[in-house]
Amino acid sequence: MENILIHYLDHPKLHEPIFVQGLPGIGNVGKLAAEHLKDELKAVKFAEIYSKFFPPQVLVMDDGLIRLVQNELYYVKRDGGRDLVLLVGDYQGLTPDGQYELADFVLKELKALGVRNLYTLGGYGMGRMVTKPRVLGAATDAKLVKEMEGHGVVFARGEPGAGIVGASGLLLGLGKLNDMHAVCLMGETSGYFVDPKSAQAVLEVLTKILDIKIDFAELENRAKQIDQITSKLREVEGPPEDRDKQDLGYIG
Amino acid sequence: MENILIHYLDHPKLHEPIFVQGLPGIGNVGKLAAEHLKDELKAVKFAEIYSKFFPPQVLVMDDGLIRLVQNELYYVKRDGGRDLVLLVGDYQGLTPDGQYELADFVLKELKALGVRNLYTLGGYGMGRMVTKPRVLGAATDAKLVKEMEGHGVVFARGEPGAGIVGASGLLLGLGKLNDMHAVCLMGETSGYFVDPKSAQAVLEVLTKILDIKIDFAELENRAKQIDQITSKLREVEGPPEDRDKQDLGYIG
Amino acid sequence: MENILIHYLDHPKLHEPIFVQGLPGIGNVGKLAAEHLKDELKAVKFAEIYSKFFPPQVLVMDDGLIRLVQNELYYVKRDGGRDLVLLVGDYQGLTPDGQYELADFVLKELKALGVRNLYTLGGYGMGRMVTKPRVLGAATDAKLVKEMEGHGVVFARGEPGAGIVGASGLLLGLGKLNDMHAVCLMGETSGYFVDPKSAQAVLEVLTKILDIKIDFAELENRAKQIDQITSKLREVEGPPEDRDKQDLGYIG
Amino acid sequence: MENILIHYLDHPKLHEPIFVQGLPGIGNVGKLAAEHLKDELKAVKFAEIYSKFFPPQVLVMDDGLIRLVQNELYYVKRDGGRDLVLLVGDYQGLTPDGQYELADFVLKELKALGVRNLYTLGGYGMGRMVTKPRVLGAATDAKLVKEMEGHGVVFARGEPGAGIVGASGLLLGLGKLNDMHAVCLMGETSGYFVDPKSAQAVLEVLTKILDIKIDFAELENRAKQIDQITSKLREVEGPPEDRDKQDLGYIG
Repeated sequence: MENILIHYLDHPKLHEPIFVQGLPGIGNVGKLAAEHLKDELKAVKFAEIYSKFFPPQVLVMDDGLIRLVQNELYYVKRDGGRDLVLLVGDYQGLTPDGQYELADFVLKELKALGVRNLYTLGGYGMGRMVTKPRVLGAATDAKLVKEMEGHGVVFARGEPGAGIVGASGLLLGLGKLNDMHAVCLMGETSGYFVDPKSAQAVLEVLTKILDIKIDFAELENRAKQIDQITSKLREVEGPPEDRDKQDLGYIG
Repeated sequence: MENILIHYLDHPKLHEPIFVQGLPGIGNVGKLAAEHLKDELKAVKFAEIYSKFFPPQVLVMDDGLIRLVQNELYYVKRDGGRDLVLLVGDYQGLTPDGQYELADFVLKELKALGVRNLYTLGGYGMGRMVTKPRVLGAATDAKLVKEMEGHGVVFARGEPGAGIVGASGLLLGLGKLNDMHAVCLMGETSGYFVDPKSAQAVLEVLTKILDIKIDFAELENRAKQIDQITSKLREVEGPPEDRDKQDLGYIG
Repeated sequence: MENILIHYLDHPKLHEPIFVQGLPGIGNVGKLAAEHLKDELKAVKFAEIYSKFFPPQVLVMDDGLIRLVQNELYYVKRDGGRDLVLLVGDYQGLTPDGQYELADFVLKELKALGVRNLYTLGGYGMGRMVTKPRVLGAATDAKLVKEMEGHGVVFARGEPGAGIVGASGLLLGLGKLNDMHAVCLMGETSGYFVDPKSAQAVLEVLTKILDIKIDFAELENRAKQIDQITSKLREVEGPPEDRDKQDLGYIG
Repeated sequence: MENILIHYLDHPKLHEPIFVQGLPGIGNVGKLAAEHLKDELKAVKFAEIYSKFFPPQVLVMDDGLIRLVQNELYYVKRDGGRDLVLLVGDYQGLTPDGQYELADFVLKELKALGVRNLYTLGGYGMGRMVTKPRVLGAATDAKLVKEMEGHGVVFARGEPGAGIVGASGLLLGLGKLNDMHAVCLMGETSGYFVDPKSAQAVLEVLTKILDIKIDFAELENRAKQIDQITSKLREVEGPPEDRDKQDLGYIG
């Protein structure tokens, strides 16, 4: 089996597309922001990504049908503006090498789609409640840093001190090696729950950059939905068969 | 060494075979149900599957002979009906990517055997005692959901909330990508011990679907046997050499 | 880099050689027994095995020289009898798939050397002090079971209940698939320390089988040496750089 | 994606170059020593090494720009003496096999650069405060041991008892198999913090060996910088997205 599979539902012709990614992470800020953007812009799904680096898991929909955990690519056509490609998904890669493989794979697909500009969305865990979340930034080019500062993004010396871990960071790091121009936007968040305020702060910056108008009314509902799914995934008693190893195995 | 090896003892010609899988998992419901079915139908073993994704372990039989841990394929010929292929085994894959590899491998073998319909059996952990276990379902097609509901299978909104983890789920998820029609039947169980009542509930549904009659008298004995094996595998003092890493190694 | 490297120092021509393996494990019974046998028989090293599945570690000898952790093959020429091939080493493979790869690799080398008969030595952890250790057995053939019983080896129903984990078991399991005739001899041991009494019990059986006479006077000294090395490997403060991940890494 | 990538910024012609490595480890002694040497000698970076075996992480510089975590190669040209190649970096490989792959990769690059002599620098954790750190040694050749002893390096029987774990050890172990002449210099350190005194002890020996004069005034400042970075990497609340697995995943 291939490490990563992509199923194209459509092969859209896109005009100088800009890429936006939001996957599960701290406070699910990136995931919430990207999914809200996708829904508000009525983005169209055109590809599904499956991988051995995701958990061996299917999700069960309300109609009793299953789907394999996945990442998904959507596009948005914009009259007179540059088109968008969005990546959302159930999981990031489970292992460090899986993270590298997935980021490298996505970058190659993006190159083929004509993408040169990337925005990755995430949360910045503060470990305390945040009333007015700032949006922190990191970028591949000095020019982009300046441009982002003009949109209110904060580039604070020593923040984030530990760098950026996971898909949001890797797309910048590997993207730079592939001549991509990329920015990571991180909303401050406590890190203790799904955070719609932080996601809104990130989206307010991003929509200004992209010159898009969206409504935020549904953001809290979406946060609740994601929170519910997340809690269920955490329930120890819930999931069938995920404790095989403890039950029958002897290896840690 | 290949990641997965299959040794065919026989190459049966099967008539539109239906596949049934039950491997170790929550309450060992799936394993118990599938092994009971296998024994009651006097199914014939025709292949053994070995893999690096299983523990590096041999089991010692009562006669002092060893056998490598494995999964096994059995067939059942049925006059005037569709034949059956059963998969039972000692373990599921130990790692996420191992789970994907094994499910993909099994699907390819099933395709070659002419299988198009899959039933995977498992337990649904409730974290509390269950007196009258329901059988929950998940499927790849809306038509199958309806058909299963006719057999008393429960498709409850939000159950299982965390989806299905492991081989039972993956065979549906990857099966769907391979045009298989698949159902997962999950018996409610506490999750604290091998559960013959839950296995019986699952088998009552499955045998109705397959139009088979079996006896359940031996089910409790079989549960006790599996329970004994499971406890032994859990004993800390028992197994020789499984603590090499703690004893001599420095890596977690 | 290859997963496993073998460096041949010599290519001995061996007469129907019999293989004996003893690696680190419960009570280090197998390792102690095999190293004692090797020393008493003045066995000659003819190959070194290195692998990515071992820890990334060198040992420092008393003269300040290093050597990479390894497994080693020795031979013993016997006038008028069958020759011996011994495998001893610092570690077993760290991961399940590494264990499979190493066992498969060793079996292929043994086949090339003309080996058909294997003896693997190990300990059987009792979790309590053992005053007169029995030697338990497991084998690939019914004929071997009978033969071993003649030498006082105990084949006890349900012992070892969890099977045999690690190299000693895998060589039997994979060996059987490769038409090898193999026996695992396990000396009862508490499992709490290196156990020369258990190693002697195993060697008394093995030397009867092989029709060899060796002295056991040095066995206790050897146990002390292995115990010292083992304790050092366990010292938390001792080893340089083995805590890099905790110190600087963020991944578990 | 390749397991390991190297980007050459320059292809220097070097005169019988001597290699020096210092990576993160116990007390960060090796990293601190090598980075100090690099800065004092105004070494020139000529290659960057990226790898799937490092964490999936980018670091954010003070100017808001990111760089993928990496190891780096520097050179120093010396009039009338042998040139130097230095390896420094953010991380060692995360897994045992990653450690082997990286060491093997580096050795092949070094061979191509004409390197035959290696010095790896590290700390030797004492688990207690050390007022006058000794420098312990290990080497691939008896001749080197003698030479090092002439420079005050201590080769103490049974120290380090557990051998040398990680890149510093592997370069010696795999280097020996590749006909390299290699020494590991380990400064005694408590292991509880970044230790400039231990790094100075190591550098005093190394500079005598290499016949180099450097200033140590900046060493304490550099230790503070590394300590700050290290603490940040350890902060639980700090890093965004490094807790994805705990948050949303079900696998340990």
